Amino acid sequence: MTLRSPRRAVAAVQVRALDGDRVLDRPDKVVSEEPMEIRVHGPGQEPQALAVTMRTPGHDFELAVGFCRTEGILGSVDELDSVAYCLSGQAEQEFNVVTVTARHSVDLAGHERNFSVNASCGVCGKRTLDQLEQHCPAVADGPIVARSVFAQLPARLRAAQSVFDVTGGLHAAARFDEHGGLVALREDIGRHNALDKLIGHALLEHELPLASEILMLSGRVSFEMVQKAAMAGIPILCAVSAPSSLAIRAAERFGQTVVGFLRDDRANVYTRSERIDLAR
Amino acid sequence: MTLRSPRRAVAAVQVRALDGDRVLDRPDKVVSEEPMEIRVHGPGQEPQALAVTMRTPGHDFELAVGFCRTEGILGSVDELDSVAYCLSGQAEQEFNVVTVTARHSVDLAGHERNFSVNASCGVCGKRTLDQLEQHCPAVADGPIVARSVFAQLPARLRAAQSVFDVTGGLHAAARFDEHGGLVALREDIGRHNALDKLIGHALLEHELPLASEILMLSGRVSFEMVQKAAMAGIPILCAVSAPSSLAIRAAERFGQTVVGFLRDDRANVYTRSERIDLAR
Repeated sequence: MTLRSPRRAVAAVQVRALDGDRVLDRPDKVVSEEPMEIRVHGPGQEPQALAVTMRTPGHDFELAVGFCRTEGILGSVDELDSVAYCLSGQAEQEFNVVTVTARHSVDLAGHERNFSVNASCGVCGKRTLDQLEQHCPAVADGPIVARSVFAQLPARLRAAQSVFDVTGGLHAAARFDEHGGLVALREDIGRHNALDKLIGHALLEHELPLASEILMLSGRVSFEMVQKAAMAGIPILCAVSAPSSLAIRAAERFGQTVVGFLRDDRANVYTRSERIDLAR
Repeated sequence: MTLRSPRRAVAAVQVRALDGDRVLDRPDKVVSEEPMEIRVHGPGQEPQALAVTMRTPGHDFELAVGFCRTEGILGSVDELDSVAYCLSGQAEQEFNVVTVTARHSVDLAGHERNFSVNASCGVCGKRTLDQLEQHCPAVADGPIVARSVFAQLPARLRAAQSVFDVTGGLHAAARFDEHGGLVALREDIGRHNALDKLIGHALLEHELPLASEILMLSGRVSFEMVQKAAMAGIPILCAVSAPSSLAIRAAERFGQTVVGFLRDDRANVYTRSERIDLAR
């Protein structure tokens, strides 16, 4: 039984690294993020989709059987007949569908209600990105922002967070204008929730689309965050941590600028660096 | 339209703080984590469940309409008729169900397939915890572990991670034996996936339940992580960051020890501190 995924856990990207006065275009590595569908069936049953999760490729079979175990679908390894990649789909999602075959018949009724749901993507990154593009057109050109503005964002986010978050355990999503002024901030234990709250606030205030603003995130940038920002028309995303491979791919499609590892006067620009004015 | 949740974003807990040679039992605050169900309907339609998300209470209406917006169900605020708490359920889940009423009729077909799914809980923390307890009995008493063992875990986790993670963007879940020896480690961009991979590995190796082991997490401890650990029979959970309110409640039910903010010779013990031998 092979436990290594044929897909890569790390993806090579090109990054524009800003460090003080220096600008360096260089190759970099980011974590791969790809959707994986887990299918389950027993003897004589058709495989049924149990879950789709955004995962880093690697140990995919462990992930599939572990998920079945923690959901109570598999009790012990003796109940497991086999685990295999489903290779009948499109090449784009090859090795992104794993089928678990149990020795007993499997009833998934009831398991739907035990899932909490994150708005994210469908099975296949490619297909979903295509779908999204349809009801999510590319963002507007938006502003060109002075590099000095970016350097201020992490400290301003921290300062604003400290007012609200007494526990230190919350993710934040904040809107900044092109001059670095804080417009709004929301927090949640789930970063996708923090962003949905921020966008919901903008909707209720008649402010959508946020075509000239900067989104600053306390954590990392996943595909899901890029997608939600695109739905709100946000042209520039910044984060203290790294973006994933799929986040970068999605931002390229939607025409968004992604800035990662933003700390003091350092930053990595992964996409659409022309929105950053290096001279100011 | 009220935008503050009647439920609290922060919960008061009692913690045993270990700091060098000192042991201090004191009150502390943790982030609230509670399930929220979002229901949607149009004129003349019955409200339908769109999603359940584990969230921090607060700005619940923004979260509900923001989620509808980023899913493409609401276009602008003009399409929104009202947002309200559904108050007909159990007292336990009061203010945890939000109904969005649109001015147009709503078709949720197709939206299920756009969701990525995290194994987590159902609508109501209470009901789900009850359900879990049925097919997830309390963990075994397990070992009593020397306090000095805990102090070593963060550095050992980091050392093991640095071997695998060249990007710095991955969550880790690791198994340690009661003497602090690393048994296995898995990583993923999603921390729930890292833990499912770890448990899947144990299942395939015939090692379940992990009744004498310590689980060490690189991030924070959510309800979902406690639940998955309980399904694998793990008695002790440690993390570099904070646990949520619901994580603590679940760990109490399952009889697990939760250690948070584990850094060098400091740690906060939230539940079942008798598994830690302070004299060693």
